[in-house]
Amino acid sequence: MSKIAVLGYGVVGSGVVELFYKNKESILKKIGKDADIKYILDIRDFPDSPYRDKFTRDINDIVNDKEVTIVAECMGGATFAYDFVKACLQNGKNVSTSNKELVAKKGAELLAIAKEKNCNFFFEASVGGAIPIIRPLHKCLAANEISQIAGILNGTTNFILGKMINESMDFDAALKMAQELGYAEKDPTADVEGHDACRKICILSSLITGKHIYPDNVYTKGITDISLKDVKLAEKFGAAVKLIASVRKLENGRIIPMVMPMLVPYDNLMSRVDDVFNAVMVCGDGIDKAMFYGRGAGMLPTASAVLGDVIEQLKNEENGTDLAQSWVDCDNSEILADYKENECRMYFRVSGISEADLENAEIIDNGEEVAFVTARMSIAKSDEFAKSVELRGGSVKSKIAVLDI
Amino acid sequence: MSKIAVLGYGVVGSGVVELFYKNKESILKKIGKDADIKYILDIRDFPDSPYRDKFTRDINDIVNDKEVTIVAECMGGATFAYDFVKACLQNGKNVSTSNKELVAKKGAELLAIAKEKNCNFFFEASVGGAIPIIRPLHKCLAANEISQIAGILNGTTNFILGKMINESMDFDAALKMAQELGYAEKDPTADVEGHDACRKICILSSLITGKHIYPDNVYTKGITDISLKDVKLAEKFGAAVKLIASVRKLENGRIIPMVMPMLVPYDNLMSRVDDVFNAVMVCGDGIDKAMFYGRGAGMLPTASAVLGDVIEQLKNEENGTDLAQSWVDCDNSEILADYKENECRMYFRVSGISEADLENAEIIDNGEEVAFVTARMSIAKSDEFAKSVELRGGSVKSKIAVLDI
Repeated sequence: MSKIAVLGYGVVGSGVVELFYKNKESILKKIGKDADIKYILDIRDFPDSPYRDKFTRDINDIVNDKEVTIVAECMGGATFAYDFVKACLQNGKNVSTSNKELVAKKGAELLAIAKEKNCNFFFEASVGGAIPIIRPLHKCLAANEISQIAGILNGTTNFILGKMINESMDFDAALKMAQELGYAEKDPTADVEGHDACRKICILSSLITGKHIYPDNVYTKGITDISLKDVKLAEKFGAAVKLIASVRKLENGRIIPMVMPMLVPYDNLMSRVDDVFNAVMVCGDGIDKAMFYGRGAGMLPTASAVLGDVIEQLKNEENGTDLAQSWVDCDNSEILADYKENECRMYFRVSGISEADLENAEIIDNGEEVAFVTARMSIAKSDEFAKSVELRGGSVKSKIAVLDI
Repeated sequence: MSKIAVLGYGVVGSGVVELFYKNKESILKKIGKDADIKYILDIRDFPDSPYRDKFTRDINDIVNDKEVTIVAECMGGATFAYDFVKACLQNGKNVSTSNKELVAKKGAELLAIAKEKNCNFFFEASVGGAIPIIRPLHKCLAANEISQIAGILNGTTNFILGKMINESMDFDAALKMAQELGYAEKDPTADVEGHDACRKICILSSLITGKHIYPDNVYTKGITDISLKDVKLAEKFGAAVKLIASVRKLENGRIIPMVMPMLVPYDNLMSRVDDVFNAVMVCGDGIDKAMFYGRGAGMLPTASAVLGDVIEQLKNEENGTDLAQSWVDCDNSEILADYKENECRMYFRVSGISEADLENAEIIDNGEEVAFVTARMSIAKSDEFAKSVELRGGSVKSKIAVLDI
């Protein structure tokens, strides 16, 4: 019988255990043989849990148990999780993880160990929660050259922006509500500053280039500067403000991964992705574009993705590794372009200059301040434009890129 | 070297050849070894094609060639395509097909032959064109009990309904335009009567039940009765009329597969799926819901899906079959429920009765005719209700179910 170990009995880990036992009958049918969860690793005690006999605090129990063939890592972070996953892989255990921080920071190293030890390192759950994206991207879309990916990859910020859009809450009130509902942490930095979305676009960028793209390589801007005024003016323009994590391949082959709030025009389906839902749009030369939508976080949705990998592993145990979803750690400077090379239309809200000074811009509002959207230009050019506004005695109140996918 | 054969050099087949050679370098890198297209089967001559040396009219050239390990069937129909695919599988060739008619009518038989011969029968391209749905459903979502699937699975009818919704064209004018643009056939029956969508929901229903669901098992109603009046009243209600192919699992385990025009409320992302795009929404106990969106037809989009399967096969050639996406031909009467058991809200447009006669209904319009949406009821109940309207001297002008997913 194949044995599973679950690392961490927090939200995701307990979801993995719950969903496995809920659907065990059909899961085993799909695997085609018997399987069970043998260990749950956690430093806490769960004396009342029906699974109390499975708990251990010692990773060595798992690492040294030959019966354990697949380990579901649901601890989070890149310290203990890194040590434990590394130890598991080094001992030939296959691993499925929901840990985006771990994959974004240590993916190349862990994939290399997996390759060396002829085992799998799966991470479908690390991007977009329940949404199938890793496997569709590297399997179903394998015939495509991927030119662009853009996604709403953080549910917390999408919830906050949704409250601003639909209920005219300001940022602080919306954040407070997100915290009360458990969607945002007490310290919401990782979400609202875009770090969480950044990790996910690192993973997708690494997948499509084959080279590890690190969080430090990604220009990342969060949503803390977004004002209700801009949200309303975006609406007037026909767009929703969303935190977009994206990567674009330039004609010279270089890529620009970045995270920033963007205006998503209403004719783009992503503008309609509300609440804590996530969506990822992928452009390729065969498919044109495809979008994947679903719950980006949460107990059972994330567990569903972790278990999908576990089932895949157990079903194909004799088939060796499937590391097509792989990349290497190497000098990536040659494939990265400065985010300021990215071209898009640009939304501005300025004061102190008049509409007459604006050529080729689509005026949205012309009151005390002027709001407009420029023609397509590089972000560098838009910075120059902003400077010229200041030189003319004006003041740039905000500047947000318009998504073009 | 692994050799590929392409059956049929029409829109999809020529797309497979084009996309393969366009991205050959990166495709071979993903496969991890050399591969090439050796044969293209077509009864026509293509003397000016750069691939003219690959053409054959004799399926036996392919069937008897040991070098050919994977066959991409892009002929369509269930006559010659059936004979040829069967011959290929019987000779141990793996097959990837875009042919929904073939899979919907003969899937169980072909899957059984594939199993017997230890080869793969792939059909990612048969549902939703470029959209990854077959593999995500049976792999990524394998931990879920799937309770419901609903999709816009026919681009032609979605284009026609879009023209009615957005440009107030009537059905005939929109159909004519679709024909002129090449989106609809001269004989548009298969699209507008729902048969094409029916084949696709048969495939998805078979996948989630493991038993072959045939087109005859599916209540199928097309869009020819949809009037501009109803489209506009739906808008007033806050919904878009879409041709929805769906399958729902009842609590007793039975399923209801059906195809019919439905009112899709604006808060459902599928209401925003425009033009020839397709989308499939899937509900499961782990994921809650997920949606997959993209081009449901066309040369390169469909080719992308066919080639995705071909790449998967060539990459894992030594790994034997992967028939988790499988079902068997058996008595399916025990898992099918009458579509009239399906419960939903129901839109009515009636004349000859007054608003006062309508309890618990949401009135949309009360002019010469009354338009309203009922509370949730079974389709059988809604038929009774329609009868009672007629008994009271009224006349039911139209009756459209409201999608609830």
